[in-house]
Amino acid sequence: MAFQRQLEVAVYHDVDRDIFIRDVYPLRKPAILKGIPLGPCTSKWTVEYLSGVGVSKEVKIHVSTVPQMDFLHKNFVYRTISFDAFVQRASEEKHANYFISEDEKYYLRSLGDDPRKDIADIKEQFPVLAEDIRVPEFFEKEQFFSSVFRISSRGVQLWTHYDVMDNLLIQVTGKKRVVLYSPRDATYLYLTGDKSEVLDIDNPDLSRYPEFQKAVRYECHLCPGDVLFIPALWFHNTVAVEFGVGVNVFWKNLPSEVYDRTDTYGNKDPTAATRAMQIIDRALKALEELPEEYRDFYARRIVLRIQSKAYRTNLE
Amino acid sequence: MAFQRQLEVAVYHDVDRDIFIRDVYPLRKPAILKGIPLGPCTSKWTVEYLSGVGVSKEVKIHVSTVPQMDFLHKNFVYRTISFDAFVQRASEEKHANYFISEDEKYYLRSLGDDPRKDIADIKEQFPVLAEDIRVPEFFEKEQFFSSVFRISSRGVQLWTHYDVMDNLLIQVTGKKRVVLYSPRDATYLYLTGDKSEVLDIDNPDLSRYPEFQKAVRYECHLCPGDVLFIPALWFHNTVAVEFGVGVNVFWKNLPSEVYDRTDTYGNKDPTAATRAMQIIDRALKALEELPEEYRDFYARRIVLRIQSKAYRTNLE
Repeated sequence: MAFQRQLEVAVYHDVDRDIFIRDVYPLRKPAILKGIPLGPCTSKWTVEYLSGVGVSKEVKIHVSTVPQMDFLHKNFVYRTISFDAFVQRASEEKHANYFISEDEKYYLRSLGDDPRKDIADIKEQFPVLAEDIRVPEFFEKEQFFSSVFRISSRGVQLWTHYDVMDNLLIQVTGKKRVVLYSPRDATYLYLTGDKSEVLDIDNPDLSRYPEFQKAVRYECHLCPGDVLFIPALWFHNTVAVEFGVGVNVFWKNLPSEVYDRTDTYGNKDPTAATRAMQIIDRALKALEELPEEYRDFYARRIVLRIQSKAYRTNLE
Repeated sequence: MAFQRQLEVAVYHDVDRDIFIRDVYPLRKPAILKGIPLGPCTSKWTVEYLSGVGVSKEVKIHVSTVPQMDFLHKNFVYRTISFDAFVQRASEEKHANYFISEDEKYYLRSLGDDPRKDIADIKEQFPVLAEDIRVPEFFEKEQFFSSVFRISSRGVQLWTHYDVMDNLLIQVTGKKRVVLYSPRDATYLYLTGDKSEVLDIDNPDLSRYPEFQKAVRYECHLCPGDVLFIPALWFHNTVAVEFGVGVNVFWKNLPSEVYDRTDTYGNKDPTAATRAMQIIDRALKALEELPEEYRDFYARRIVLRIQSKAYRTNLE
C-alpha cells in the first residue's frame, strides 16, 4: 500500500497457554499463532461433511450480490436458510437456488438462539460440530464470552470494525486476508460507531478520506489451522480469499462488570465509555448556546484537556 | 521569528463607527486603527501632568524586579500606592523610594472600587482624567463593560492571555509592542486557564514547547494615538517599549446573558463554556474507570466527536 505505512503481524509457533499469557497477550498487538492443536475440525470440516452431517438448523445469513459488504449503503440482505444448505451454497460460485442473484455471496456470523438475549456459543447451537474443535484455552472459563461460526463465500469482505473483547480467530479451513489497524489510529478511520466508512481499504478515495493515509496497515494472511489473536479495540477487515470456515472466541479480558451486560455480540462499548460519550453530548449541547467562533474555541480547549488527561503518554 | 510563521496586523486609517462595524468588526481579526479622535489626552497626559493633577487615589499595582511578568512563578508582588506617586515611579528607571529593588518595574491595571463586585470604569475611578479622553463609540451604550487604565514601566511584558470580550486598546502615550495569536492556535500555546505558559515568546524553549512553533505570530507596534482592536478570544502579549499610558475598553460583543455575571475583569469564560468544561470533567471521571488502553481509545473517539460537532469547518 503505497499510500500507507505497512507493518507485519508477528508470527508465533507452538504457543501454549503459559507462553501466550507471558509473551503475546501483554503486548496488546495482533499475532498469528501457528501450530495450535485444534482437534479434527481442520481435516474433517469439508463442504461435504458440513453439508451432510445433518445440521439442518436454520441460520440467519448476509446475502449480497457483490463481495464487498457495505454497511453504509446496506448492499446486503438478511435471509434465513438451513445450515447444511447454506454451506453448500457458500462454497459454490453459481447457485441453482438463490435469493437475489445467481452469483450472490454469503456470510454467516452465528448467533445465539435468541440473538437479543443469547450469546453465540457453538457448543449450544452446533453441539455436533463443537465436538470436532478444540478451542485454545488461553483464558479462565469465567472469562469466556462467546464462540462464533464465521463462514464466507469466496471473496466476501467484511468492513473494518472493532470489538470490545479479546478475540482468537481460528481459521479452520480456507484462506483469509486480515488487515488490522491499531486503536491509536481510530482518528484516521472515519468511524461511524464501531465501523470505518473507508470500505475499499485497498483503493480508498483519498480525496474523501485523506487522513486514512496516516493509518498504519497491519496485513496478514491466515492459512487453515492458523489462529489470529485480535486484541480488543483493534480494527480488523477480513477478506475470504477462498470459501472458508472459521470459529472465533471472544473473552472478557477485563473484569466482567466493565462490559455492557446487554451485549450479545461483543461490540457494545464498556458502560463507562458509553456514559462518557453521553456526557460529552451534554457538553456539546452546552457549547451550542455559543456562537460558532466561541464554540470552536472552547471545543479546542476541551480537546486539549481530554488529550492531557486521558491520552496515553507512552507513545511507543 | 524564524521558528514561527508571522503575519501583519491590518492597519486602518480614519475609521469611524460605520466603517468599523462594516469593515473591521466582522473580520474578527486584530486591527490597528489610526487617526481616531481621542481628545486632549494624547498631548496632555505627560508624567508631570498625571503625577501633578492631584489624583492621589490609592491604586493596587504589580511590582517586579524583572520586566517579564511570570504568572507561573509569581515573580511579582501586589502593592498599593497613590496614583500620582505610581506614575512618577513607573516613569523612572531608578527609584529613590521602592518596594523590593531600586530598579523595580511597575504595572497598573486599574480596578473597580471593590474589585470583586465593581467593574473598572475610568469615569468612576478617575473622573478628572476621564474628561481628557474620548473613547471611540463603536458599540451601543448597553454593550459597554469596562474601561481600564494600563500604565507600565518601560520594558514591562504581560503574559499571553485572552479575554472574553471585544477590546479596544487605546495607546495614549508611549510605544507598545503587541504580539497576538488567533484563538485557533490555542492548541499550540500551552494554556493554563486563559494564560499561555510560554512566557518568553521571542526566545521560547522549543524542546519544552515544541507545538508553539505552529502558532502564527501577529506582531504590531503601537504608537501614541493608535487604537488596537483585539477581538474576544484573541491571545495577546504586550511589551511596553517605553513608559506608557493606555486605556482599554471592553464591550460585550455577544448578548449580555452569555457572559458570566460575576465577571469583573472581562476574562471569565461564558457560562455555557464553563458548564461544558465542568461536564467534560465528569466524562473524564467516567473514563477513569477504564484501563489506560481503553481510556485512550475512547478519549480519541470523543475528541473526534467534538471536532466533528463543534469545530468550525470553514478553515480560512
